[in-house]
Amino acid sequence: MSIVVQNIRRAERSDIDRLAAAGVATVHEAQGRRGMLASYMRPIYAGPAVAGSAVTISAPPGDNWMLHVAIEQVADGDMLVLAPTSPCDNGYFGDLLATSALARGCRGLVIDAGVRAVADLTQMGFPVWSKAISAQGTVKETLGSVNIPVVCAGALIEPGDVIVADADGVCVVRHAEVPDVVAAAERRIGAEDAKRRRLAAGELGLDIYAMRETLAAKGLRYV
Amino acid sequence: MSIVVQNIRRAERSDIDRLAAAGVATVHEAQGRRGMLASYMRPIYAGPAVAGSAVTISAPPGDNWMLHVAIEQVADGDMLVLAPTSPCDNGYFGDLLATSALARGCRGLVIDAGVRAVADLTQMGFPVWSKAISAQGTVKETLGSVNIPVVCAGALIEPGDVIVADADGVCVVRHAEVPDVVAAAERRIGAEDAKRRRLAAGELGLDIYAMRETLAAKGLRYV
Amino acid sequence: MSIVVQNIRRAERSDIDRLAAAGVATVHEAQGRRGMLASYMRPIYAGPAVAGSAVTISAPPGDNWMLHVAIEQVADGDMLVLAPTSPCDNGYFGDLLATSALARGCRGLVIDAGVRAVADLTQMGFPVWSKAISAQGTVKETLGSVNIPVVCAGALIEPGDVIVADADGVCVVRHAEVPDVVAAAERRIGAEDAKRRRLAAGELGLDIYAMRETLAAKGLRYV
Amino acid sequence: MSIVVQNIRRAERSDIDRLAAAGVATVHEAQGRRGMLASYMRPIYAGPAVAGSAVTISAPPGDNWMLHVAIEQVADGDMLVLAPTSPCDNGYFGDLLATSALARGCRGLVIDAGVRAVADLTQMGFPVWSKAISAQGTVKETLGSVNIPVVCAGALIEPGDVIVADADGVCVVRHAEVPDVVAAAERRIGAEDAKRRRLAAGELGLDIYAMRETLAAKGLRYV
Amino acid sequence: MSIVVQNIRRAERSDIDRLAAAGVATVHEAQGRRGMLASYMRPIYAGPAVAGSAVTISAPPGDNWMLHVAIEQVADGDMLVLAPTSPCDNGYFGDLLATSALARGCRGLVIDAGVRAVADLTQMGFPVWSKAISAQGTVKETLGSVNIPVVCAGALIEPGDVIVADADGVCVVRHAEVPDVVAAAERRIGAEDAKRRRLAAGELGLDIYAMRETLAAKGLRYV
Amino acid sequence: MSIVVQNIRRAERSDIDRLAAAGVATVHEAQGRRGMLASYMRPIYAGPAVAGSAVTISAPPGDNWMLHVAIEQVADGDMLVLAPTSPCDNGYFGDLLATSALARGCRGLVIDAGVRAVADLTQMGFPVWSKAISAQGTVKETLGSVNIPVVCAGALIEPGDVIVADADGVCVVRHAEVPDVVAAAERRIGAEDAKRRRLAAGELGLDIYAMRETLAAKGLRYV
Repeated sequence: MSIVVQNIRRAERSDIDRLAAAGVATVHEAQGRRGMLASYMRPIYAGPAVAGSAVTISAPPGDNWMLHVAIEQVADGDMLVLAPTSPCDNGYFGDLLATSALARGCRGLVIDAGVRAVADLTQMGFPVWSKAISAQGTVKETLGSVNIPVVCAGALIEPGDVIVADADGVCVVRHAEVPDVVAAAERRIGAEDAKRRRLAAGELGLDIYAMRETLAAKGLRYV
Repeated sequence: MSIVVQNIRRAERSDIDRLAAAGVATVHEAQGRRGMLASYMRPIYAGPAVAGSAVTISAPPGDNWMLHVAIEQVADGDMLVLAPTSPCDNGYFGDLLATSALARGCRGLVIDAGVRAVADLTQMGFPVWSKAISAQGTVKETLGSVNIPVVCAGALIEPGDVIVADADGVCVVRHAEVPDVVAAAERRIGAEDAKRRRLAAGELGLDIYAMRETLAAKGLRYV
Repeated sequence: MSIVVQNIRRAERSDIDRLAAAGVATVHEAQGRRGMLASYMRPIYAGPAVAGSAVTISAPPGDNWMLHVAIEQVADGDMLVLAPTSPCDNGYFGDLLATSALARGCRGLVIDAGVRAVADLTQMGFPVWSKAISAQGTVKETLGSVNIPVVCAGALIEPGDVIVADADGVCVVRHAEVPDVVAAAERRIGAEDAKRRRLAAGELGLDIYAMRETLAAKGLRYV
Repeated sequence: MSIVVQNIRRAERSDIDRLAAAGVATVHEAQGRRGMLASYMRPIYAGPAVAGSAVTISAPPGDNWMLHVAIEQVADGDMLVLAPTSPCDNGYFGDLLATSALARGCRGLVIDAGVRAVADLTQMGFPVWSKAISAQGTVKETLGSVNIPVVCAGALIEPGDVIVADADGVCVVRHAEVPDVVAAAERRIGAEDAKRRRLAAGELGLDIYAMRETLAAKGLRYV
Repeated sequence: MSIVVQNIRRAERSDIDRLAAAGVATVHEAQGRRGMLASYMRPIYAGPAVAGSAVTISAPPGDNWMLHVAIEQVADGDMLVLAPTSPCDNGYFGDLLATSALARGCRGLVIDAGVRAVADLTQMGFPVWSKAISAQGTVKETLGSVNIPVVCAGALIEPGDVIVADADGVCVVRHAEVPDVVAAAERRIGAEDAKRRRLAAGELGLDIYAMRETLAAKGLRYV
Repeated sequence: MSIVVQNIRRAERSDIDRLAAAGVATVHEAQGRRGMLASYMRPIYAGPAVAGSAVTISAPPGDNWMLHVAIEQVADGDMLVLAPTSPCDNGYFGDLLATSALARGCRGLVIDAGVRAVADLTQMGFPVWSKAISAQGTVKETLGSVNIPVVCAGALIEPGDVIVADADGVCVVRHAEVPDVVAAAERRIGAEDAKRRRLAAGELGLDIYAMRETLAAKGLRYV
């Protein structure tokens, strides 16, 4: 039952970087308001948006053995994604694993559990989005799997999907949809810039988006 | 059922600013330990205390239409206060709405739900106290109301009440009580300064507040 | 039932400082992965690791009277540890109490409840690990005890135990075990430095820890 | 600051009983989907719907003194409603207080905190909706108020408002709106009976409510 | 983006019924400890185990329109599975929808949100596993989808997967794995019966499973 | 580090049974409002109060191996108490383990984690107080300890302490204090019976406990 899938599809590096530049909120909107992980997934420090190809890990509660296995599967530009098989806030990951991950070009970690040594990780510039910060250690006794589909913080993530993460949280883009989402995200950014200028000048969204009539039709009354 | 109240009472600007200067903990004590919103309401970035007149919004879960309606009702110095009609952590508010709110002199947002684009909001200096940070988007389909009494994070807030918010959380002051609370808060600050000097010099609260006798009378034993 | 124990054992100051230098994750591992408080205990600001001897407080919900009593028992280098007798997120502690605690050489506070005036505490450099930040005030009506064993955030803490706290959370070391844990922590740091260099050079944990055979024996398959 | 309001408005007994007969879901719909308390408010045992006039209590965390004061204010047909001034799960209420409340004609308790002796309360047939069940006791040291407006489990409740509670939770009806809500609830019940028969016969809501066209217009596609 | 898939695969009725007879704990073990939904999914009343083919619904927060659409897709023996697109505890489903679902042979509902009219549902014998019980109503404004893959309470569920639910919670079995899981579950039941007899007679698991040596080898000491 | 302590103190059987007869709320009050486990510990079915000597288990998250070890240590009249070393809701215990425990005279289980097969446990009459119900299985890979002091749901429990559990939750009585607590509990029951009669006859607690003067002195005003 425990497997390591060694070859995964990856999106184009340039597309991945354009998703990072667009940021989580825009990417999420661009793909039809899908793909957000639960809002309890928070960055351990304030930093720029990152994106990478998901190397996924399914791990037992309180057991980080598969992280060691997964790091060998990391290619330059990847992100690690760990989902425990049941809720757990243990510190699965710290500065030693981050050192190893960085040496392989890993861009960050998304983990529906805990991490530790966050002062070190911050100093190293290794970004993490996690459910918890906890020094509670883990064992290395039970197998899990690497690069199988996982549900992480409420979202389905398949190996090679693109993970985008920033101060707003974490969003997943299906591998097959990456080019379309890149295009949609960049169109959206263009459209938003124009709106931003009008709003900054004092125009109201009610007028820019022509909402007044619909609101009245639905029955909104001003008193 | 869905209404927008266009004229609300507002407290004196100078009183509002004096409440901001006093800060949340002092204001809350000055009005008899009342008015705190739930402690899960946290600022999205560390910044100074702010205060403003509440423009209130009652909105359906996952629907931010009424925010567009509410911004038109914002006068210089106001704060937006949004309470969803049932628990929701969606990102109702981001950089575009903040641009529009700032253009009207809005001082910040208190929202018992989520916000997004928090990196942009931080850079713009638009303060928010929220239950969650989430990029999960919302729709514009269902009406709510603006400037009706709402329960936000466990506290009743009426339009025109003064909201004070800082690193300690969010406190509401009833419109009619503002002058009294300003006075009580400033008295309290004076009294605390004197105590702070004595405590810094090594005197004990046990002695400053003359607690030893009462403690003994209640039965405290030293062993 | 309400007592104040005036004389408690304390560990050697030099050992306490070496535990602070080792940090929470290392200390916790060095004592066999024991002693962590629950992961909801978070620092109110980012700062260095601290350690100190526990002066413990058992307090009723919403009543901070015993903090005043406890401060008299603080010796230079101690840490205050407060456990409410039932869950409570009130702000038991603020800048006045911190001023008094600092005047007695207190190194920080660990509280399974709330604190307030966190902007002031940050500016003063008084570190706190808490369950909540809340300005909601407390009364001074009901007795509790000082320097009795308490369960704080899921961990048993006895007076004079050493508290180590940093960005990873809070760990307790039994008074009698301090010298052994110091030694084990420092051995661990040495061992980790060597591993860190090898991992940074691109060696894999799979090889450094010789895991491949065990993984295969347990049935891990590469596909 | 601590007061007991002795005379409160009460709705007509017959209207109150008709609201109980309609039940929470219907009453809540009949008043425009307003008035529900948070869904964590659960009955301690399965029983029929009840309704009564609210006698409200604002009490400190861990202090049930005001319950004794409130019981004197209970008239036949009332319900007690307790909101702590900050979150607390202590057992404020047990079989002795229930005995006293029953002797005065009290119909039940709604409490945003804990209760105890639930086996006894069940046997006595005294219904309670609470946030928690806990034997953790309380003190009688600090004043609160009786019959002031309170926010209980996220809903504003004023003395004399009608509380309706059943297996679905708790709903509040404003005193002034009771007659209208009774009428609307009973109209709703009539309309639902007709629909229930059609649905039981196999007709689809899609057809009964004529939804197909709107769904198509919004873009729903069958594949 | 909003679609209704009209034809889904379904497992053999006899296999589905054998999974119901095996129950959740056994089925979950039989498929390698996979497939459990989060433990907060609880039955609204105590009843027998049920199983059925999943008709899945992805619905916006606070909007139950798609339930009406989904019921038309229900075939005899199916179970409805609803996942909101963001966390929501509203009461999406009550006695009218249950009447309609029952008329089509629906065996129950699994919903990562709230339901209402639970007294009626209990009396009708319509089983529900939900995150919440709440009478808070929903609107019919925004589209979702029917019979697409959803993540419900942390588990991926595809249309036509088999849902097994009982007092222990909810488990999903992939459509393609149903025959194998049925066989494995029934083997497991046979093996457990033998063990149960030995344990009831006083034999210890330590001996039946021959654990003593392994425990000693791992270092367990009896003192 | 992993040990099994084979000989533990136990209280007198007759005293244990008298504590069960007194029930949790009374026992907890009789020992000065101490000893309650967290209120999330709930019985899996409604049943009578039970009491027994604690056989304690410290177990890793997701690993129930030590339960098999612990059952050998159970003497007639004991209760099993399991505390995971970090938060976990897995189903550690089901009908097979219950069969084995019952064969040794075990009176029940208190577990700060999950159990499964709750329909079977209910039918067998094996009472459990747990944090969760979950069929999610566990492994048998990592050692823990039996009969060491544990913190379970926020309370310190030492082997041989008496556990009292009923519909109100779970309370622990220190081994050394059992005779005194028995006596105090029974005195309390006598006193309560008298009060119950007076309250049932319509006397008010305000008068029975002579509270009116104190309330007035503290400043309560009737308006």
